[in-house]
Amino acid sequence: MWDNLPALKAELDAFEQVMLEQFRSHRNINAYLDDLSRDIILSGGKRLRPAMTIASAMLGQYERDKVLGSAVSIELLHTATLVHDDIIDNSPLRRNKPTVYAREGVVTAVFTGDYLLVKSLLALAATDIPQEHMVRLAQAVEAVCVGEVEQYHGRGRMPSFKTYLSRISRKTAALFAASCALGAHLGGLTDEQVKTAGRFGSYYGIAFQIKDDLLDMLESTAKTGKPAGNDLKEGVVTLPVILAAGDDPRVLAKLDAVMSSVGGKKASKRDVLALMKMVKEAQGIERTQEVLTKYVALAGRFLDKLPDTPGRDMLRTILDTSFSGYTA
Amino acid sequence: MWDNLPALKAELDAFEQVMLEQFRSHRNINAYLDDLSRDIILSGGKRLRPAMTIASAMLGQYERDKVLGSAVSIELLHTATLVHDDIIDNSPLRRNKPTVYAREGVVTAVFTGDYLLVKSLLALAATDIPQEHMVRLAQAVEAVCVGEVEQYHGRGRMPSFKTYLSRISRKTAALFAASCALGAHLGGLTDEQVKTAGRFGSYYGIAFQIKDDLLDMLESTAKTGKPAGNDLKEGVVTLPVILAAGDDPRVLAKLDAVMSSVGGKKASKRDVLALMKMVKEAQGIERTQEVLTKYVALAGRFLDKLPDTPGRDMLRTILDTSFSGYTA
Repeated sequence: MWDNLPALKAELDAFEQVMLEQFRSHRNINAYLDDLSRDIILSGGKRLRPAMTIASAMLGQYERDKVLGSAVSIELLHTATLVHDDIIDNSPLRRNKPTVYAREGVVTAVFTGDYLLVKSLLALAATDIPQEHMVRLAQAVEAVCVGEVEQYHGRGRMPSFKTYLSRISRKTAALFAASCALGAHLGGLTDEQVKTAGRFGSYYGIAFQIKDDLLDMLESTAKTGKPAGNDLKEGVVTLPVILAAGDDPRVLAKLDAVMSSVGGKKASKRDVLALMKMVKEAQGIERTQEVLTKYVALAGRFLDKLPDTPGRDMLRTILDTSFSGYTA
Repeated sequence: MWDNLPALKAELDAFEQVMLEQFRSHRNINAYLDDLSRDIILSGGKRLRPAMTIASAMLGQYERDKVLGSAVSIELLHTATLVHDDIIDNSPLRRNKPTVYAREGVVTAVFTGDYLLVKSLLALAATDIPQEHMVRLAQAVEAVCVGEVEQYHGRGRMPSFKTYLSRISRKTAALFAASCALGAHLGGLTDEQVKTAGRFGSYYGIAFQIKDDLLDMLESTAKTGKPAGNDLKEGVVTLPVILAAGDDPRVLAKLDAVMSSVGGKKASKRDVLALMKMVKEAQGIERTQEVLTKYVALAGRFLDKLPDTPGRDMLRTILDTSFSGYTA
């Protein structure tokens, strides 16, 4: 993903070293949790959030030492929420590997996530970002918790588009927004520009989740690292389903049938496949691509308002690369 | 517990208000998690850790505004780890009420714990404690994670006393130590005195966990708020068992029998009762009381080194009250 952005890739390589440092101390005491954490970290995440923090800092005056510590803190926060997410989503695979939850059980998954959160806090404490950005990061994690619990309690029920949007804003977009805003702040941009960078991140994050919903409907495990239809199987109603059901009562009825079997038990594979077929017939994919296109354009519009710098070019490339082939 | 300490009680009342403030904002968005958090917080914890932070600050110059925010952060950290602990311990009850885990399931317990951790971080960000104490608190939570995972992986196996001690130092004592050290720092004590306060807290915490182990062996639900024998049922080997098994091969054999049924399945109630009987016959209770007495005395010795102030008197009263009736 970063081959077209060599300057960013060089920073991300340095970032990897700083991140791994967190799991090298006190090895005798924490070996088990350190090993698990390193396994997860090295299992091939794309480092999108740290890349955005770095690129946003390059909108202004880039100071590596200040930026990388914050980028590490953000990636560890994100990784922690993934480990806990996999419990909620009952996920067997992530990035084509068994999740901590699937491999080691719920107890270890809970404490590995907590451990990563603590490591994130330690990385943050080692920087001296101002209180206001520390609060913003904490609020982003708060948003993730709230978004996840909302989604969990809403499973099996069709949300309105508005509810869906507010849920993914919390669950996914808040941390992207914080990543960009913090980067822009560290680059010495004005408060107004920091806010604009945050809005770019927020729209990027919404688009990112919409693409994730599309992938759940479209792709096989090989491409996404997760089994197709896993969201639906867990009763999580994704955007293609919402948009397909919009004017097709058959889809709504089918959805109810699938979802009624969720909640304790799982939806059957046959039900999920039937539902996916109906969503496709009702143009759920195409409609989702149209919405995705809109949010990618919105993100681009905020990007236009930021200073014309190498950082902005990087963010533009990230935006284009992330969604190419998925927009309408 | 605080009736003999009216000055401390007044501060703890103010502390309650500050803590509840954390769960009043954005009520529309976070109502569910706020309500759950408030339920847990109001379910009757003794506020030992915040009391120690406050009393330790009273070893020097007490400034309420600085101290209460940190005390709130510590209590919320502790509460977060309890919520996640109840998952690991499979606990039906805490403080005589169903745990979040038992009532709402594992998913909600995971995210309620995370939410409390975030709220703790937000409370901390609102104070301006120095980086060094922020790191110490994060390390205390790190220690809790490591201690819990060690205990989980060690279940069903007899640890040495040394292993037991290092485990409870992390699982329980680290946060008491941080509570006292942070308080002493906020009271303006010297680095040496801050360290001494931390060691008092650490020995207090070890004694606290040993008493908890005794209670699991001795008391009914009515008194502890938790079912008796719950630790044993989950394969957690407590100190009375370790000390009883020390020179009684029958106890060791019985322990193996009970523990072999743990790990996925649970030990039967009959096995647990038989084990408890044997531990009592092998003087496990009395031996544990002797060890407890030793650690209470050690805590007292560090207390003696601290400045002779109302804060020290309070800490003395807390120490005496906590263990009266349980020492040898």
